[in-house]
Amino acid sequence: IQFVCVGGSPNRMRAFAQFMHKELGLTGDGEDLADICAGTDRYAMYRAGPVLSISHGMGIPSISIMLHELIKLLHHAKCRDVTIIRIGTSGGLGIEAGSVVITDTAVDSSFKPQFEQVVLDDVVVRSTELDKDLAEELLACSKEIPDFPTLIGHTMCTYDFYEGQGRLDGALCSFSSEKKLEYLKRAYDAGVRNIEMESTAFAALCGLCGLKGESSC
Amino acid sequence: IQFVCVGGSPNRMRAFAQFMHKELGLTGDGEDLADICAGTDRYAMYRAGPVLSISHGMGIPSISIMLHELIKLLHHAKCRDVTIIRIGTSGGLGIEAGSVVITDTAVDSSFKPQFEQVVLDDVVVRSTELDKDLAEELLACSKEIPDFPTLIGHTMCTYDFYEGQGRLDGALCSFSSEKKLEYLKRAYDAGVRNIEMESTAFAALCGLCGLKGESSC
Repeated sequence: IQFVCVGGSPNRMRAFAQFMHKELGLTGDGEDLADICAGTDRYAMYRAGPVLSISHGMGIPSISIMLHELIKLLHHAKCRDVTIIRIGTSGGLGIEAGSVVITDTAVDSSFKPQFEQVVLDDVVVRSTELDKDLAEELLACSKEIPDFPTLIGHTMCTYDFYEGQGRLDGALCSFSSEKKLEYLKRAYDAGVRNIEMESTAFAALCGLCGLKGESSC
Repeated sequence: IQFVCVGGSPNRMRAFAQFMHKELGLTGDGEDLADICAGTDRYAMYRAGPVLSISHGMGIPSISIMLHELIKLLHHAKCRDVTIIRIGTSGGLGIEAGSVVITDTAVDSSFKPQFEQVVLDDVVVRSTELDKDLAEELLACSKEIPDFPTLIGHTMCTYDFYEGQGRLDGALCSFSSEKKLEYLKRAYDAGVRNIEMESTAFAALCGLCGLKGESSC
């Protein structure tokens, strides 16, 4: 395994593995890839040659469980120099719809480049830096494809999709449209170009465990 | 709809809907229940008569997305006096393996009966009280079944499965076995009888939106 690609949805990550199987010209039926983790529905895992494609569900707690187990698996399988890329969905901020944002730094809801990990009842602050060279390499790849708007920017990671990302249409909402726009403007001014729910934990855990990581949503 | 039952795994919640279909003596093929949310794999939803059975994935962010959308759905469908019960898995603390813990209060990793919700970049503290009468009613039901160890206790909700719950076998671990046991003992002394990853957000959101809620894991 040289590359691990992760995203939220099991169906999407199966489709991605099928796509990779075809792109890499691998033998055998790419349409019929087996889910390596079929015994559980915590997450789905598919292999296409040197690429693992894994779903992680939604949010930091969910991706953390998968990453702990993946990192142990790669260790015991003696995989070395593995590159891991999150290819999930996200909400863009002040950018063209359909753009891909390659994350240089994952930031929390206060725009700080950090992840607060609760260890027992202590809070440990971890770095959320991602691999800058890999980000540049991915940006270079995007230039080979016409009409594929791609940029490098900060990615904000929240614990909540509705109240945490300024949505007015959740089951409850305690802020005004003005307050929402003021917050999103501050996020934009801090360099945030998209919002999702996993990047800080992904960056922190991969960084600590020596996986070369990148997030492009 | 009178009851909504939620749990982490889509397969398990399909099996639960099939079980309810049979238990309630409903007509039609209970083995072939349609996933009402088949268009997405964010979560799965099945209906068996007056019971909805829904998966919520793992962790607070994941269950929050489902609950916001469920609560809006029940509102627009004009459902009234709905009871919602989480029937997930959990790790027991100082109790017999296989026991069911009916939650009286959901607590956070510091054993406080509260949920800190980030709204934009503010932190709002919400109550995690659950319906005491419903807890007693569920306990009474358990007594009708022989060999079904059931108790009422506090449930601790964490953001992390490995480092947050004192596991020594994650991809990384920075605490000793002694420190783990000391933490779990403090949790037990504070009344915690099981640990899972959704109950505080479940209790807070259901409480605020007027759903009668209970968690039994």
